[in-house]
Amino acid sequence: MVQIPDPPAPPSSPASRPVPTSADVARLAGVSRATVSYVLNNAGAVRISEPTRRRVHEAARELGYVPHAAARSLRAGHSRMVLMPAPPVPAGPLYSQFVHDFQQALGRLDYTVVQYGASGLRGDEAARAWAELRPVAVLVPGPGIGPEGVAVLKRSGARAVVTLGCDRVEGAHALLLDHETVGRAAARHLYDRGRRRVGVVVPRERSLDMFSRPRLAGARAALDGTDATVTELSLAYTEESARALAARWRELGLDAVFAFNDEYAVLVLSALAERGVRVPEDTAVIGADDLLLGRLVRPRLSTVHIRLPSGRDLAELVDRAVRNPGTPPESRELLAATVVGRESS
Amino acid sequence: MVQIPDPPAPPSSPASRPVPTSADVARLAGVSRATVSYVLNNAGAVRISEPTRRRVHEAARELGYVPHAAARSLRAGHSRMVLMPAPPVPAGPLYSQFVHDFQQALGRLDYTVVQYGASGLRGDEAARAWAELRPVAVLVPGPGIGPEGVAVLKRSGARAVVTLGCDRVEGAHALLLDHETVGRAAARHLYDRGRRRVGVVVPRERSLDMFSRPRLAGARAALDGTDATVTELSLAYTEESARALAARWRELGLDAVFAFNDEYAVLVLSALAERGVRVPEDTAVIGADDLLLGRLVRPRLSTVHIRLPSGRDLAELVDRAVRNPGTPPESRELLAATVVGRESS
Repeated sequence: MVQIPDPPAPPSSPASRPVPTSADVARLAGVSRATVSYVLNNAGAVRISEPTRRRVHEAARELGYVPHAAARSLRAGHSRMVLMPAPPVPAGPLYSQFVHDFQQALGRLDYTVVQYGASGLRGDEAARAWAELRPVAVLVPGPGIGPEGVAVLKRSGARAVVTLGCDRVEGAHALLLDHETVGRAAARHLYDRGRRRVGVVVPRERSLDMFSRPRLAGARAALDGTDATVTELSLAYTEESARALAARWRELGLDAVFAFNDEYAVLVLSALAERGVRVPEDTAVIGADDLLLGRLVRPRLSTVHIRLPSGRDLAELVDRAVRNPGTPPESRELLAATVVGRESS
Repeated sequence: MVQIPDPPAPPSSPASRPVPTSADVARLAGVSRATVSYVLNNAGAVRISEPTRRRVHEAARELGYVPHAAARSLRAGHSRMVLMPAPPVPAGPLYSQFVHDFQQALGRLDYTVVQYGASGLRGDEAARAWAELRPVAVLVPGPGIGPEGVAVLKRSGARAVVTLGCDRVEGAHALLLDHETVGRAAARHLYDRGRRRVGVVVPRERSLDMFSRPRLAGARAALDGTDATVTELSLAYTEESARALAARWRELGLDAVFAFNDEYAVLVLSALAERGVRVPEDTAVIGADDLLLGRLVRPRLSTVHIRLPSGRDLAELVDRAVRNPGTPPESRELLAATVVGRESS
């Protein structure tokens, strides 16, 4: 067994007592440090009597000693930590729910999900920073990592790297979210309803580009070769920006708009109503994400329902990958897009 | 300097090569392991020639060696990790924005924010799990920790524990969010507009109790001793639940409702409109949080604007507390509540 020294006390400990070490526990319990380590880390292979175990636990409690996860993972060679980089924008409701479910499901499998905050690092540099925490698995949303980053993570002990995005990355499991299908579904729906001059909202928020660009491309692809046109509409998530867009509406001559998602769609609906543009008579509006919000506004909002993977399915995939690190990376198409037609289109 | 052994390779490494260690780097660079450690951890106090530094960096790059953050924090006695437990419910827009800003601000101060996922543990048991990661500071939202948990964290090296909630906890800095003031402000506003039979929505979602209970208590306190009554209204965040509530509206005989927050308020507005209850003529409605959403619906939603601490202010408080761990815990009142009266009340 590798011996791990206890961490030295911080230069100026805020508590009145110094940080207790496993040596303190050993002294108080009258046993060796190795015994303390065996007992507190549940090393099942070593036989230690019940009274000794009890003495160690009591001494640890009395001193307030907590084992060091880092030292434990150094000994074990890996941790139970699943690392997820935090998204670069405040999470929307769909993503918040997904992360919440995923955390719950992994928690039931005895993993701890750790969201790693924005560090200003990008791509493979960020992967090096993540690797320093020695996670057993990493789930990377968006275009955050390349083959080099995957290799760095694996060499530092990660048994599974899973990307959640539009592209496959060599060495990583891929959960493919093809946002083009969302744009295609929205544009086809508008076309089928007789619309021919289609606006597509692209949020000004740059970090949404990874969703908005493929959605726009999908809409263009769906209408390519038809008699319909696609017009890109830049929009910030503010009333001012929506009003400025609505003020140009007659001049733009559009009869439909795919408004990126339901939140942007409600913003557009409100600005068009203020200008007297009738929905759906003058302009059809469709969002995406199928939030409850869209059913609460009038006219009720048409939307593209997006089926994300369930947190449980994804947690099981991660667990399988951790337990069988030798299996080759698998790809799975995840995003099923279905139009929900309501009053606004 | 304490010598930290490298982690052993995991039992079945997914990569074709074994996990490289600092000993491998030392061998390839032709230097001692201590030199590798000095160079890669930027130990400024030790003089090492530029060519040697370069050799070590090249060898590390060639082997794909990443220093172990855990080992580094064992050596340093603390980390740059600020730990935040993830909230027990999917985060709402106000909280998502706050966490995002806080992460950005701490990132600029060279900390890494790590959100620790739901682990099924509560209170001081959870604090022990957090302590195992040896964070330098912990920010606990909600009623998640007691004095014992604070002591455990400090003894394991945390220099600052900051709670964000309704109560002070011994030994921790307190950012006090008094949700009673939100309920008081809403109820007073409704009373001033001549309303006397006030409903207060309490979400069925149990993990929102920490906000909804004080908001209800504040509304009761504000109307205590007046001729107005307060009726508690249990509501799930679904259209079905809102419709069931609206169906009982005449029978309840209410002329106003404080709907917990803007999202619940929009749900209530929609259900009342379906039933032909006029807002504000028959029933005044007020939400809380001042989301953009409330300005987009018709009638425009009255709300309680809540000023949360800026992410930057909070990051600076954490940084000060980390740098001066001896200073006694401070308390700060954070929540300023102002009514924004619009069309719905």
